[in-house]
Amino acid sequence: MEINVHTKQRDYPIIIERGILAGAGELIYARLMPAGQIFMVTDSGVPECWQEQLAAGLGDPDIYVVPQGEASKCMKVYEELLTWLADRKASRKDMIVALGGGVVGDLAGFAAATYMRGISYVNVPTTALSQIDSSIGGKTAIDLGGLKNIVGAFHQPSMVIIDPDTLTTLPPRQLASGLAEAVKSGLIRDAELFRIFESDDCLEHIDEIIERSLLVKRAIVEEDENESSVRKLLNFGHSFGHAYETWNAGRYLHGECVAMGMMSVLQDEEIRSRLSAVLSRLGLPKSCDADPNGVLEIMTSDKKAAGGRIDIVQVDKIGQARIENCSIEELGSMLR
Amino acid sequence: MEINVHTKQRDYPIIIERGILAGAGELIYARLMPAGQIFMVTDSGVPECWQEQLAAGLGDPDIYVVPQGEASKCMKVYEELLTWLADRKASRKDMIVALGGGVVGDLAGFAAATYMRGISYVNVPTTALSQIDSSIGGKTAIDLGGLKNIVGAFHQPSMVIIDPDTLTTLPPRQLASGLAEAVKSGLIRDAELFRIFESDDCLEHIDEIIERSLLVKRAIVEEDENESSVRKLLNFGHSFGHAYETWNAGRYLHGECVAMGMMSVLQDEEIRSRLSAVLSRLGLPKSCDADPNGVLEIMTSDKKAAGGRIDIVQVDKIGQARIENCSIEELGSMLR
Repeated sequence: MEINVHTKQRDYPIIIERGILAGAGELIYARLMPAGQIFMVTDSGVPECWQEQLAAGLGDPDIYVVPQGEASKCMKVYEELLTWLADRKASRKDMIVALGGGVVGDLAGFAAATYMRGISYVNVPTTALSQIDSSIGGKTAIDLGGLKNIVGAFHQPSMVIIDPDTLTTLPPRQLASGLAEAVKSGLIRDAELFRIFESDDCLEHIDEIIERSLLVKRAIVEEDENESSVRKLLNFGHSFGHAYETWNAGRYLHGECVAMGMMSVLQDEEIRSRLSAVLSRLGLPKSCDADPNGVLEIMTSDKKAAGGRIDIVQVDKIGQARIENCSIEELGSMLR
Repeated sequence: MEINVHTKQRDYPIIIERGILAGAGELIYARLMPAGQIFMVTDSGVPECWQEQLAAGLGDPDIYVVPQGEASKCMKVYEELLTWLADRKASRKDMIVALGGGVVGDLAGFAAATYMRGISYVNVPTTALSQIDSSIGGKTAIDLGGLKNIVGAFHQPSMVIIDPDTLTTLPPRQLASGLAEAVKSGLIRDAELFRIFESDDCLEHIDEIIERSLLVKRAIVEEDENESSVRKLLNFGHSFGHAYETWNAGRYLHGECVAMGMMSVLQDEEIRSRLSAVLSRLGLPKSCDADPNGVLEIMTSDKKAAGGRIDIVQVDKIGQARIENCSIEELGSMLR
């Protein structure tokens, strides 16, 4: 299936199809007609079979492999990637194709956003999290000094290609972590999507879950491309989630932190209990032993903080979210 | 006087007024109503009197001072500046005010473009080159591995404030170098501006020169915000100019290299002779001892290169420019 995303920068298609990876190169040539060289960026954790399938279709391009993990989203690797492009005399007509999870997409996307002030970029996400969450929105970024995504740019891809088959080689914990973002999408905008998690087999419905999650994100992002208000709804569970991620320094995955963040922020007891049941089914954590004061301190350094108060997202009814401007004290009482 | 610039990102005013620097802070507060903190970025070469005037009007903000010179437009200083902002918990509502020449504007502008994916930015250029050339266009960038402006973003300022009085403390060689870009603007789009350089006193007409240059640039940039074709006209003299700059590694200023670049590329003998007379009046160089093969090699690594051919800008009639796609051989014959 195909989802078309409309943005101020450009319109682009998201292609979702089992087994499409082998035909991704052909698709890129047919639809985008690249005028220059193609450079592939991937990470050491992406199974070779997927790298080879994509590379073969692209005519065996130069490949830059970053080490697996969040640590690669740093200034040093960003500079190395840009230098690698410059050494190959990459020009403004060239294109970056990113294969991998959110780390590769964010890093390669930011390099594409800034190399010569912007070159084309195709994203081929291979993890549940990146397929569900980071293929729409145009957010690219790297981390700096322990602050996640503090440096980046809005840069829309020319195309996103999603092959759900790549999830078959994903560790179960990674899969569950990615699904946490889909649970979030259900809670904020799509009650039927949340119901799938409550009553159906997730793996059997993975295509529908990806599609519904992307449609939620597309609707919100198209309403508000530059994250001034509506787009903040997508941050449900993320204010606490990002802080848990920083506090636990790698012990939990992003989606696991979002799961715990949603549990922390939710005030409605019935929804909280239904979410708790869903997280149990998925094997996702609901809380951790983080020190509330430490978490609060991290949150006030976070980019969503401004003037001592923080916008958080609250859900009072499944499928509907709203923004609430909270004081540090109110956040503290949620944590305790 | 005030020039309003219309871009896809935003509209913003350029205020040009002798002595306005002392009132710049007031102007920023009145017109932009900043909601957060203001951070000032300047360089060690900007006379203290100008730094103090601006800082006083802004309520003595934190000031980041980069070492004077092109070397500060590097990944290391960029990272340090971003870290400095993060250490001060700069948020998305905050603003960067840049005071200085093109180096400060490009560097601070790129930091503003990418810190939290973009915060507000006011440019207060204090050199002839930056007042004439870099206050319109939204180009921000840093250098990497000897390649100028290879990493950057398009990020429009919220306001540009030009005080021609700041040119009184500028070394004469810097002043002449900046005026080279105004000569270029005359040649490509404004015959009357070129005439001023041929017959009038430049210092007496500095306000008119700045204004006419900005109007040329505005017209071209508004026609083509993302430099696909028309905007290339502004690169007249720059293909060779950038290569001379790299070859001579700091021995010549940017505008001096543009002056030599215009002399190299011009084929019309009458225009070349008139330009030569203007450059003599301004004390600008017309040629250097660069090795033609070395210059050619640099040009093919330059970002304007694609597929072995390079778009250069040619002027056949004063005030009118066109783009010409040249082979490496044709460029070589211009150099010899």
